[in-house]
Amino acid sequence: MTFTLPLIEPVTDIRLEAKLKHKLDNKTKPVGALGQLEDLALQLGLIQRSDIVSFADPQIVVFAGDHGIAAEQVSAYPQVVTVQMVANMLAGGAAINVLARQHGFALHVVDAGVAADLDDHPQLINRKIAYGTQNSCHGPAMTTAQLHQALQAGSDIVNSLPGNIMAFGEMGIANTSSATLLLNRLAGTPLKESTGRGTGLTDPQLLHKYNMLKAALQCHPPTNQNDTSDSSDQTLAALAALGGFEIAMMTGAMLQAASQRRVILVDGFIAGTAALAAKCLAPQVQQYMVFCHRSAERGHSLLLAHLKARPLLELELRLGEGTGALLAWPLVQSAARLMNEMASFSSAGVSTQAPLLTTT
Amino acid sequence: MTFTLPLIEPVTDIRLEAKLKHKLDNKTKPVGALGQLEDLALQLGLIQRSDIVSFADPQIVVFAGDHGIAAEQVSAYPQVVTVQMVANMLAGGAAINVLARQHGFALHVVDAGVAADLDDHPQLINRKIAYGTQNSCHGPAMTTAQLHQALQAGSDIVNSLPGNIMAFGEMGIANTSSATLLLNRLAGTPLKESTGRGTGLTDPQLLHKYNMLKAALQCHPPTNQNDTSDSSDQTLAALAALGGFEIAMMTGAMLQAASQRRVILVDGFIAGTAALAAKCLAPQVQQYMVFCHRSAERGHSLLLAHLKARPLLELELRLGEGTGALLAWPLVQSAARLMNEMASFSSAGVSTQAPLLTTT
Repeated sequence: MTFTLPLIEPVTDIRLEAKLKHKLDNKTKPVGALGQLEDLALQLGLIQRSDIVSFADPQIVVFAGDHGIAAEQVSAYPQVVTVQMVANMLAGGAAINVLARQHGFALHVVDAGVAADLDDHPQLINRKIAYGTQNSCHGPAMTTAQLHQALQAGSDIVNSLPGNIMAFGEMGIANTSSATLLLNRLAGTPLKESTGRGTGLTDPQLLHKYNMLKAALQCHPPTNQNDTSDSSDQTLAALAALGGFEIAMMTGAMLQAASQRRVILVDGFIAGTAALAAKCLAPQVQQYMVFCHRSAERGHSLLLAHLKARPLLELELRLGEGTGALLAWPLVQSAARLMNEMASFSSAGVSTQAPLLTTT
Repeated sequence: MTFTLPLIEPVTDIRLEAKLKHKLDNKTKPVGALGQLEDLALQLGLIQRSDIVSFADPQIVVFAGDHGIAAEQVSAYPQVVTVQMVANMLAGGAAINVLARQHGFALHVVDAGVAADLDDHPQLINRKIAYGTQNSCHGPAMTTAQLHQALQAGSDIVNSLPGNIMAFGEMGIANTSSATLLLNRLAGTPLKESTGRGTGLTDPQLLHKYNMLKAALQCHPPTNQNDTSDSSDQTLAALAALGGFEIAMMTGAMLQAASQRRVILVDGFIAGTAALAAKCLAPQVQQYMVFCHRSAERGHSLLLAHLKARPLLELELRLGEGTGALLAWPLVQSAARLMNEMASFSSAGVSTQAPLLTTT
């Protein structure tokens, strides 16, 4: 099976953009006084092709997968924590459950490739590719066929869910390792700068992680300069060699969500690498993405800078699961409501700023 | 009438603090992975003296007042915008109305000293001290009697409202001028660094504002070194000389809210100077304050640094009204819910971080 890239329309619409800017500038506030929320309102209007933004059936999908590279002891937690946390999410006890309840998001957990069998559960979607990826220090994390299967599964899952807001999260012991490797391969970010503590490595453990990641990169040398394959092929090659099932599935999910003009809430570092991979495959996908927070994980700031993305929150979170995405959600709603509901200067009878000041 | 400082208990409780930290550290997440929200959850628990935090009847009170110094053309908007924006708020069209509806806050607007007569309205509280302050470039903004009246009014208003969460906002053309002057007098911040564009001054207008603020300071020389008055007297003197009715009233409101162990949501620059004044009068009041955002107005970062406060949001807002406070409110709720509802490692059967990693 080969995953076919869905058609993603650019949101660009010069007339609508002018209309949205005019509407925002004429709200009863100084021009630009709502800061980043004005840019966000503009983006939401362009995505929804309207100067009234409305949201329906918000969804959070948490992709869970295990990583062969966990065998190299690159995480502070044992691999079994992946399946334990999936069980915790299905029991309603994880941070993402609390936030999904707070904000009325429907939550599904996807078994993208957990290294254990999982019992059926109404909130569990079984799209297991394998019992974890292979160890990328010794060979490709997954086969090309598995990669396409994962991309397609992400796409299918989005397709099966209602609503026009999609938040994606992840769970997978050692997945900051996979994310750091992908960031290196897809954005050229040096490992020295981007290898981070994940769930809480000590200094010696961090050095060990760095050495293992270096070994993984050496095991998968980059395509050489004379390679004639296009950049999509290179992206797919990087995902297969260094990725995780949950990351690849999230990549497919983001592409599908954008093709259906849904707003994508992008969480932290791991979700960010899925966003990066999706952008490498279809640059216009980023127009549908709201970058929700800057994580405490080192590589994330470098990734955001590469994408020229300014996130909404910066709370030193480093939890994943989609928690940063859901924490930022009320700000997205606020941006929409402010554009929809605020009075204009003329409707409220408020004087506009006058260039009447003289200076001494 | 003399305003009597209410008794404010410090929230310090070593046993409870240890209990809260233990509870947070045993949630199913890496230690500290919820970043700033963990500090916030701890603060909320200490304020409410419980490891279960609950909120009731959230209130937003917007204090509106005019400023004599507006005559010096220090604002990009004419003074009449204060009363126009009050009308807009009472009609439900301002940004703060949108956010209050979104988050279920009861909203009241206080006429602290608007330079116009206002019609009765169920959401309007009339505590007008005068038709605007006097111009501080020529004399004290208010009399000592008016200052005490304003502080008492703020306290009375809080006392009359239910709930354990209080957000305070303000509206008043030229009030960044008053705030900048107070920041100088109460925290020693140089005008050169703190004079900002407010609602949108051009470069020459900004220079003019700076010159006017310098003149106001010269009109009110600081208490000299040999003065034996205590620091509370100096704070009150600064508020009377340079303050605004809405700022003084907010100061009284914050003190009263803390004395009743209510959580105080502190908005941006103007509300921040009220927080600073309140802290100068009763340092422990800050323990009840959640600093909600960093405004784009220059002085605000300096004020936050002086208070050693790290705000929750940084969205380049510069609107006031309490908008930053209400935008941050869902994060305060999240902090509480995460502490209340997340499973612990033991209850969820999740493995804790193990110091079992060896390094090469």
